[in-house]
Amino acid sequence: MKEYIKIHPWQIVEEGFHRENVKVSESVFSIGNGRMGQRANFEEDYSGETLQGSYLAGVYYPDKTRVGWWKNGYPEYFAKVLNSVSWNQIRVEVDGQVIDLNQMEPLNFTRTLDMKQGLLKRAYRVVTAKGIELEFDWTRFVSMKRKNLGVIALSIKASADCQINIQSKLSGDVHNQDSNYDEFFWQDTQAGVEGSQLWVTQETKKTNFSIAASSLHNIVLDTNSYTVNLSTEDRGSLANFNVRLEKNQELQLQKYTAVCSSMYGPEAELRNSAHAEAQEASHVGLAALLREQSQEWARIWHNCDVEIEGDDEAQQSIRFNIFQLFQTYTGDDSRLNIGPKGFTGEKYGGSTYWDTEAYCLPFYLATAPSDVARNLLVYRYNQLDKAIENAQKLGFTKGAALYPMVTMNGEECHNEWEITFEEIHRNGAIAYAVYDYINYTGDTGYMAEYGLEVLLGISRFWSQRVHFSENKQQWVMLGVTGPNEFENNVNNNWYTNKFAVWCLNYTRDQIHLLQKENPKRFAEIASKTAFAASEITRWDEITSNMYFPYDADRNVYLQQDGFLDKELIPVSQLSADQRPIVEHWSWDRILRSCYIKQADVLQGFYFFEDEFDLDSHKRHFDFYEPLTVHESSLSPCIHSILANKIGNSDKAYEFYLRTARLDLNDINNDTCDGCHITSMAGTWMTISKGFAGLRVRDGRLHLSPNIPQKWKSIRFNIRFRENYLRISLYKEQVEVENIEGPSLLINSWGVDFQVEPKQSKRIDYAKK
Amino acid sequence: MKEYIKIHPWQIVEEGFHRENVKVSESVFSIGNGRMGQRANFEEDYSGETLQGSYLAGVYYPDKTRVGWWKNGYPEYFAKVLNSVSWNQIRVEVDGQVIDLNQMEPLNFTRTLDMKQGLLKRAYRVVTAKGIELEFDWTRFVSMKRKNLGVIALSIKASADCQINIQSKLSGDVHNQDSNYDEFFWQDTQAGVEGSQLWVTQETKKTNFSIAASSLHNIVLDTNSYTVNLSTEDRGSLANFNVRLEKNQELQLQKYTAVCSSMYGPEAELRNSAHAEAQEASHVGLAALLREQSQEWARIWHNCDVEIEGDDEAQQSIRFNIFQLFQTYTGDDSRLNIGPKGFTGEKYGGSTYWDTEAYCLPFYLATAPSDVARNLLVYRYNQLDKAIENAQKLGFTKGAALYPMVTMNGEECHNEWEITFEEIHRNGAIAYAVYDYINYTGDTGYMAEYGLEVLLGISRFWSQRVHFSENKQQWVMLGVTGPNEFENNVNNNWYTNKFAVWCLNYTRDQIHLLQKENPKRFAEIASKTAFAASEITRWDEITSNMYFPYDADRNVYLQQDGFLDKELIPVSQLSADQRPIVEHWSWDRILRSCYIKQADVLQGFYFFEDEFDLDSHKRHFDFYEPLTVHESSLSPCIHSILANKIGNSDKAYEFYLRTARLDLNDINNDTCDGCHITSMAGTWMTISKGFAGLRVRDGRLHLSPNIPQKWKSIRFNIRFRENYLRISLYKEQVEVENIEGPSLLINSWGVDFQVEPKQSKRIDYAKK
Repeated sequence: MKEYIKIHPWQIVEEGFHRENVKVSESVFSIGNGRMGQRANFEEDYSGETLQGSYLAGVYYPDKTRVGWWKNGYPEYFAKVLNSVSWNQIRVEVDGQVIDLNQMEPLNFTRTLDMKQGLLKRAYRVVTAKGIELEFDWTRFVSMKRKNLGVIALSIKASADCQINIQSKLSGDVHNQDSNYDEFFWQDTQAGVEGSQLWVTQETKKTNFSIAASSLHNIVLDTNSYTVNLSTEDRGSLANFNVRLEKNQELQLQKYTAVCSSMYGPEAELRNSAHAEAQEASHVGLAALLREQSQEWARIWHNCDVEIEGDDEAQQSIRFNIFQLFQTYTGDDSRLNIGPKGFTGEKYGGSTYWDTEAYCLPFYLATAPSDVARNLLVYRYNQLDKAIENAQKLGFTKGAALYPMVTMNGEECHNEWEITFEEIHRNGAIAYAVYDYINYTGDTGYMAEYGLEVLLGISRFWSQRVHFSENKQQWVMLGVTGPNEFENNVNNNWYTNKFAVWCLNYTRDQIHLLQKENPKRFAEIASKTAFAASEITRWDEITSNMYFPYDADRNVYLQQDGFLDKELIPVSQLSADQRPIVEHWSWDRILRSCYIKQADVLQGFYFFEDEFDLDSHKRHFDFYEPLTVHESSLSPCIHSILANKIGNSDKAYEFYLRTARLDLNDINNDTCDGCHITSMAGTWMTISKGFAGLRVRDGRLHLSPNIPQKWKSIRFNIRFRENYLRISLYKEQVEVENIEGPSLLINSWGVDFQVEPKQSKRIDYAKK
Repeated sequence: MKEYIKIHPWQIVEEGFHRENVKVSESVFSIGNGRMGQRANFEEDYSGETLQGSYLAGVYYPDKTRVGWWKNGYPEYFAKVLNSVSWNQIRVEVDGQVIDLNQMEPLNFTRTLDMKQGLLKRAYRVVTAKGIELEFDWTRFVSMKRKNLGVIALSIKASADCQINIQSKLSGDVHNQDSNYDEFFWQDTQAGVEGSQLWVTQETKKTNFSIAASSLHNIVLDTNSYTVNLSTEDRGSLANFNVRLEKNQELQLQKYTAVCSSMYGPEAELRNSAHAEAQEASHVGLAALLREQSQEWARIWHNCDVEIEGDDEAQQSIRFNIFQLFQTYTGDDSRLNIGPKGFTGEKYGGSTYWDTEAYCLPFYLATAPSDVARNLLVYRYNQLDKAIENAQKLGFTKGAALYPMVTMNGEECHNEWEITFEEIHRNGAIAYAVYDYINYTGDTGYMAEYGLEVLLGISRFWSQRVHFSENKQQWVMLGVTGPNEFENNVNNNWYTNKFAVWCLNYTRDQIHLLQKENPKRFAEIASKTAFAASEITRWDEITSNMYFPYDADRNVYLQQDGFLDKELIPVSQLSADQRPIVEHWSWDRILRSCYIKQADVLQGFYFFEDEFDLDSHKRHFDFYEPLTVHESSLSPCIHSILANKIGNSDKAYEFYLRTARLDLNDINNDTCDGCHITSMAGTWMTISKGFAGLRVRDGRLHLSPNIPQKWKSIRFNIRFRENYLRISLYKEQVEVENIEGPSLLINSWGVDFQVEPKQSKRIDYAKK
């Protein structure tokens, strides 16, 4: 838990240099535009601890896995987001002294992430060994409009005449800290100087992604007392500026870098493209680019901002979460997905997890045009063949599909057996996303076009994964890992069993619907997938007689078989020095303890809330929440939503801050590795599904607000089918402005109200 | 399953060159003397697949582990038996053509492991490109008398005059194939030539074991038409012989190599020692060394042979098992132990497993002076502090000891959590060994001197590892892996629970006994270990109310909670192409299947047989055996013993062959990695505990034979306390010769008979 970030509604601010938190700040202040992104590493030299990171969307490397004892079915590689060409290194020497904030004591240091405009800024003063005081001002951004462009602007003033040397690099000499065998992942690196540009081209080993980068510099000085010299280095190129800076004179340097990858253009043209884009940026100039950037972010905020009145801490937090989400994924490319760390670190390899469907989808459904969410679904549709292959590797047949736990291209690339082979509930979330998307958007055509094939593959998997227990005379599912990864290889995880039954029923219903409504398309799918009606017979046998662990005394579903044999000691009785337990306890101790890493049974209540009454919600929340340590970033948001549901406003607010400020306050002591991007969408859900009570039932929008005591109002826009709405929530009123779209009937706490086009409607509500 | 080894009562014979089995043969024909050993790699070049291996007892390397996702408490290293200086490489060129059996077709190839004399021999003829036929004869052994000595004798004859070049190496350029990061484990390698000797010295990284090796050659030729040239190479030295060999002339070359390690001498003297030992061997000469070797093995066989009349296949097999055991461990050094592969391969790192206590101890108890078995126990006593440290790492306190699953020096060095942290039943076997040793030898003093401290540490572990289940109102043990490693992280593994209770009771009884019989010594131990009487109170609570999974319908104990929820399909219904399942199925599929890798509940019946009646044995055997795939080498022997016990002679014999010929027939398709040394002691147990029905109860020797239909008799010697006995078993008679020791009362199938000193007694028996 750290509290060095200043509260500000639109900015993330570090005041005074927090050397002990440099790696955390590098994560928190990260910048990105969905296509490229980087950690907030300093431009100038920094000799202290740092995790250098600069990443390109979709450019990955299949690092050779590191496994002690191989097990049949393990993937051969672990895909890694690649540390890519570095364009932020700008060494500054003043009278021969290298500026290095680890060696100097900066004065008036401020670092600001201006979320409104999408800018990373730093300003500070340092005094050199010779006693000259220098004032530095850095601005950096990756352009939201020009997806391949990164810009750095530097201003230096000195308190006395001095000699300044600036070495600005474009470097392909970049390494992943998490490389398993200290391998360099790039090959054929070439670098050079052409006219006034620096350039680097290189290619990944194995995956053969090519990239080209080009940098141009612009120096602004009211004298001509400087020289520029460009040169080529090993794996990079360098612009060397020698400037005679006079007292109180300002030196400005701008660096425009374009990085093009073969994800978005033919390899042969990359170098030219990069050059042309850098050139154009340089012609447009800094001021215009800053205006563009501000306009682009204004457009995003206009659609997606959440305004919280009365609580700047909460306000800052939700904007930070939204800001990072849009920096990570903009939804314009169905080949891309949302890595748990986005562009803010190497951990989890930038790969796709079930986080996308379970946490991110609702965010993009409500805040972006529907093709953004659709692209996320099509991503999985495109990988269906590989999911079928993956299931085959594990012994499943006849088109059963097991989507990977971790993937870059549809292939599984995690390799702990307890996760890869057993954390199969991910299949449920991927199926649920089809339902969620259609339910929210009303795009029923998606089912025929893409959805049903995915559902069929997944249902076939469940159908083979369960078996009939002669002992129980019920269907069971053995050897799984639920969302709570503090349990491995358990029998009858309630959540997974629940999801299996849901998938089978939903798929059956959708098959029947399509048979009726579009028999031709259904016949095509049935033929393509060799579907037999007898499959449904088996599904019905399973779903009508599935076993769910249950305790009659407490009237609660049990997380898994044997859960009650554990010592049930509430987390509140754990001493602080044992937390987080994952850092202090051996794995076996964690496994046999009752402690829950993240919502498991409660995650099922979150998804299937309408199947359970409020008392049941309360009982399960009261049983499980005290045993939950929330050592997954995905946990607090679900608990906030459920706490809201059961009317526990204090807990709902507590969990809101815990999810929203997870990285800002480094709550789990791991933000140094990168920000928890996917859980940020969960933060947004605590607002929309939690405090606002937003649901879509039978095609109707529901709002059942319950806003925290401290807040005066919440305002946000959503897209809902044909409508674009502005929603304002007050303590006892809800207001909806129908910005775009037809007249809309909305339900609030059971009361219907109609909002006409371009009109607002504000009504009192009475909580049930 | 391979059947290329010829049956012979005293020899392992390969006739005709089986190129496809070279790596299997390299394992099977391995030689060793307990101090050093090596795989049967060819001396001459071999360009085909090979696993080069030459090992020194106790010389290991802590290789950096390879783990995908680190878990708290994992050890930092995996200890590896080290591929050590290679002295068997002798390249032969004839008229410039390298002899390479992978490139040539050998004629009349025979390879023989002469178990009676402890010799590895090969003979063959090859025809060179020039049409000259050459006859090669190789003999190799590591001396049972001179523990640092290895000898190679080569004879070559040619069908026509030819030029022969021989390059005999002493090489420190040796690598482990299983090195995790392709690291070279040796440092400071020096090599040279001094007078007529080749020498190499080197040291392991990190562990700093030093070794020195010295080779001397002797050439025998009835002309002087040869030259010798010694030289130094990178990491080695070389003797180069150029010989003009005439038609039908015989060239003999002998190579005497001594390898000394700092395990057995001060580093500074190693080189001199090696030189002196090689020199002495060379003076003694080949003929005398062969006589010595033959005498040493005759001495071993005299004491330890098992003679089976009427079944050469069975005879060859048991001798092979005994031979390999004595090649691996001779019991003269309590720092050493018995690696699962001995000196025959790298796998399992040459480390100590529970195999030693559960499988090997009975063999050494009966066949060797009692200090050999005692040394095996003292090995664990000496590592008690580290077992306590190991338990502390996992969160246990107050002197609780968890012995490692895999160790070289007392530290855990495996790193799969499901094994390291959860396969804790090893603690049971280590405690049982104390009981077993004292029960067999009558050496009750061991308890006071060493045993009780070990028992106390282990019992404290169990006492903390269980907890009281409010739900069951009984004590439970969650999250373990039993002997059947095809289950991970199960609750209430019957075998482990059983062992925990046994340990607690046995420790309590021994504490009470020592309190009574030697209160002074007890007070010392109590003080050293901070023992409190209240500990026993808790133990009694646990043991009197421990939960054991049980099925009332079948009246069988269940392997673990939930076992009956599995699909119970007998192994006989698995198709052959699915076997071994570990090679064909993914890990999760194996885990949720009912298939048992090795005896688990039945292993408990083996240890605690007297607690269960014969019907119970039958019921449990009939329930579990059909579900057992025996994919651990440790499985068939236990099943043979139990089959014998329940009167199923056919199964007993079938399992005997399966354990005895596991490597000779490569039954599990993994002998290429090395022989299964520890299970070979299990083979010996199928004879002694199985067919002979040997038990010690209340200090009395029992023999309840039940020999296979095909066999006329079994004969073997055992040591039992003060007696040295020769036992002959016939279909309906048992004969005991009291070779040494006082008059002895023996029980056979319930009938007592007395055997006087130096007398034999033969009685009819009637099986119950």
